[in-house]
Amino acid sequence: MTEQRTTNNEQRARIGVLGRGTVGGAFIDQLEDRAFQVERISGRRPEVAGVLRRSEGDFDEILANSDVVVELIGGTDPARDYVLRALGAGKHVITANKQLVAQHGDELFEAARAGGVQLRFEAAVAGVVPVIRVIQESLAATRIEKVLGIVNGTTNFILSEMAATGASYEQTLARAQELGYAEADPTEDVGGADAAAKMAILARLAFDTPVSLGDVTFEGITEIQPDDLAYAAELGLSLKLLGVAERRDGGISVRVFPCFLNADHPLAPVEGPFNAVMVEAPSITEITMSGPGAGGEQTATAVLGDLVSILSGEAPVDQPRERLEVIRDVSAAFYLHLEVADEPGVLARITEILGRNAISVQSVVQRGLGDDARLVMVLHEVAERAFYAALEEIGDLEFLRAAPRAIRVVEEVFA
Amino acid sequence: MTEQRTTNNEQRARIGVLGRGTVGGAFIDQLEDRAFQVERISGRRPEVAGVLRRSEGDFDEILANSDVVVELIGGTDPARDYVLRALGAGKHVITANKQLVAQHGDELFEAARAGGVQLRFEAAVAGVVPVIRVIQESLAATRIEKVLGIVNGTTNFILSEMAATGASYEQTLARAQELGYAEADPTEDVGGADAAAKMAILARLAFDTPVSLGDVTFEGITEIQPDDLAYAAELGLSLKLLGVAERRDGGISVRVFPCFLNADHPLAPVEGPFNAVMVEAPSITEITMSGPGAGGEQTATAVLGDLVSILSGEAPVDQPRERLEVIRDVSAAFYLHLEVADEPGVLARITEILGRNAISVQSVVQRGLGDDARLVMVLHEVAERAFYAALEEIGDLEFLRAAPRAIRVVEEVFA
Repeated sequence: MTEQRTTNNEQRARIGVLGRGTVGGAFIDQLEDRAFQVERISGRRPEVAGVLRRSEGDFDEILANSDVVVELIGGTDPARDYVLRALGAGKHVITANKQLVAQHGDELFEAARAGGVQLRFEAAVAGVVPVIRVIQESLAATRIEKVLGIVNGTTNFILSEMAATGASYEQTLARAQELGYAEADPTEDVGGADAAAKMAILARLAFDTPVSLGDVTFEGITEIQPDDLAYAAELGLSLKLLGVAERRDGGISVRVFPCFLNADHPLAPVEGPFNAVMVEAPSITEITMSGPGAGGEQTATAVLGDLVSILSGEAPVDQPRERLEVIRDVSAAFYLHLEVADEPGVLARITEILGRNAISVQSVVQRGLGDDARLVMVLHEVAERAFYAALEEIGDLEFLRAAPRAIRVVEEVFA
Repeated sequence: MTEQRTTNNEQRARIGVLGRGTVGGAFIDQLEDRAFQVERISGRRPEVAGVLRRSEGDFDEILANSDVVVELIGGTDPARDYVLRALGAGKHVITANKQLVAQHGDELFEAARAGGVQLRFEAAVAGVVPVIRVIQESLAATRIEKVLGIVNGTTNFILSEMAATGASYEQTLARAQELGYAEADPTEDVGGADAAAKMAILARLAFDTPVSLGDVTFEGITEIQPDDLAYAAELGLSLKLLGVAERRDGGISVRVFPCFLNADHPLAPVEGPFNAVMVEAPSITEITMSGPGAGGEQTATAVLGDLVSILSGEAPVDQPRERLEVIRDVSAAFYLHLEVADEPGVLARITEILGRNAISVQSVVQRGLGDDARLVMVLHEVAERAFYAALEEIGDLEFLRAAPRAIRVVEEVFA
């Protein structure tokens, strides 16, 4: 006698997979490996209904045969079209595509609402680190004040390596590319656009308001010099590409910038390709979550977690309910690095400009002699507009030997 | 014209609150403050249906008038009875009571299943740090290998303070009591039973198998001496009361013990009353979550997150589906601190005993002269049974000036 197992259509969940790269392959493998567990939890046995590859498979056919569509193509074209069509056809969608959600979130959420289906995207931010679920579910009714994130593994790897080895940005990028931590064209990562997209998504969920990529101010790490990291190490600081989303003046501000953190900051120990997100609210103090920000298996695990939630009939990730203004005129503390000729009156000229712009100096270190003198200053928090006005004036000074370098500092960590 | 708002019974969610201490008070305040948000998310407006205090209120009446019962009394009697009656009456239950879930989990899960209702308990482990939800939902289909936790804020505060100040355990406990980080009777915290209960809960969820307090081996921190912490600091180690739940030999092992961690361990930076939990699986590498482990507002926020999930109709936390054996014969690396008379042959005698028990020595430091000599050794990983057999022999040596002190070390951190 052979035991007969039958699964009718009601109990099956047909999964259409768009894209079969590293993540897609890992997801299909995990789905097969864990199908029994998924069925035990959700009551529905998942089956791959079809896989769309660049050279193979037909989207319409896969769509027609799927209950859930998993978008792992990346980019916005044709991913946006596929996801909108899937939602419009009443299929749940899981995506790992941060640019898609950050650039077209409003449209996608509206399509999900209209189709009465779920749109989930845990893997789009911080890989397997479950920040979306925690913000969206654990903290759904909590008034979040601020979200800080190290959400790009490539830049965190490069900055960690530069600090450890003293090598230049260019050398370290090449090493990251060799090791597979940076892409052949690293622009989106090192320029900050990738982190900006992720912070747009986190801000949307944390503040329950529409945020898109265009609302995020961002800078990358391409201008960072090894000696900035050397000065920082002496001061017990580490440099991170930090995302900040916070309530400010009745609106919100979302920014990405390289930034010094004090050694005892919860995000300071996050090294290499890891990601971490810290959520702050008066009623929680802070929660910090960290883990691998990328990797095929890890990202696939995040997708699998979303799938279990959809099949279990969990509450969907909703459209935003607030409409908060994006505030761009913010303030920050700055580290300022100047290469100057060692002439009398240099410091006086610089401090005069700072003083006239109401910027007060927290600490000054002068190093070297003659043409190679370095002036490293830490300035108290000030409106960024005032700082950049002063910086422009300083940049024009005749005794400057190189363009001034400015890096933000989180809080008054040099106290 | 005044806008009329009506809420019928279908749209209301009546919340019965058992206990009105620090957490109960904070929860009732948050519920009032965030009622609008809860309604927007879940479609149901929460209302406090009744509050049971020590001297006031009738459980049966509150039960009859509630859709969800929130148990914040603590202890197992009468909490167990109340929770079982609530589940039996078809009411969802949220509890922050780790001893209740750790000691009576099987019975409670069965009652929830039979009643067709949810039992949620995020606040029972690591306060507002959402470890239950992440293990139970994000990682539901993931095969978790190991969970490490600093899950008792009192002991972590005491160990952090002892390391920072060099004060004795007794002095530091008194300071923790003054600051409100330790209770008047600290036994449950400092003896490890509180952490053991939390690890039982995490193990149950991580491995999907019944685990109760009796399955957890635990030790506390009452024997820790300041000089152990001083030696550790020199070696770049920090001492934590660590919970470990792991798969081992086809079963599971769940333990709580004081333990040295290397400075680069993800849990090493967790200081003061904070809690942190690290989950390991091949497909995720590791996820670490940290935040305040206690506090009225923080714990109440975790309860509120559970309430939103229940009112949104999210999938319940299920009964375990596996039946894994508890393995007690485990192995560990050890730090061994011996006070010995400085006589010839001391080290030879000790190493002979270790060698005969197949224990190899990783490093030895000898300090001091004459009667006050200290021998600090780090031993390679060995079956704990073999180590304790050797320790008993060593304890009987005539040149020992005090009882030997042994503390586990996570992995070979002295490499």
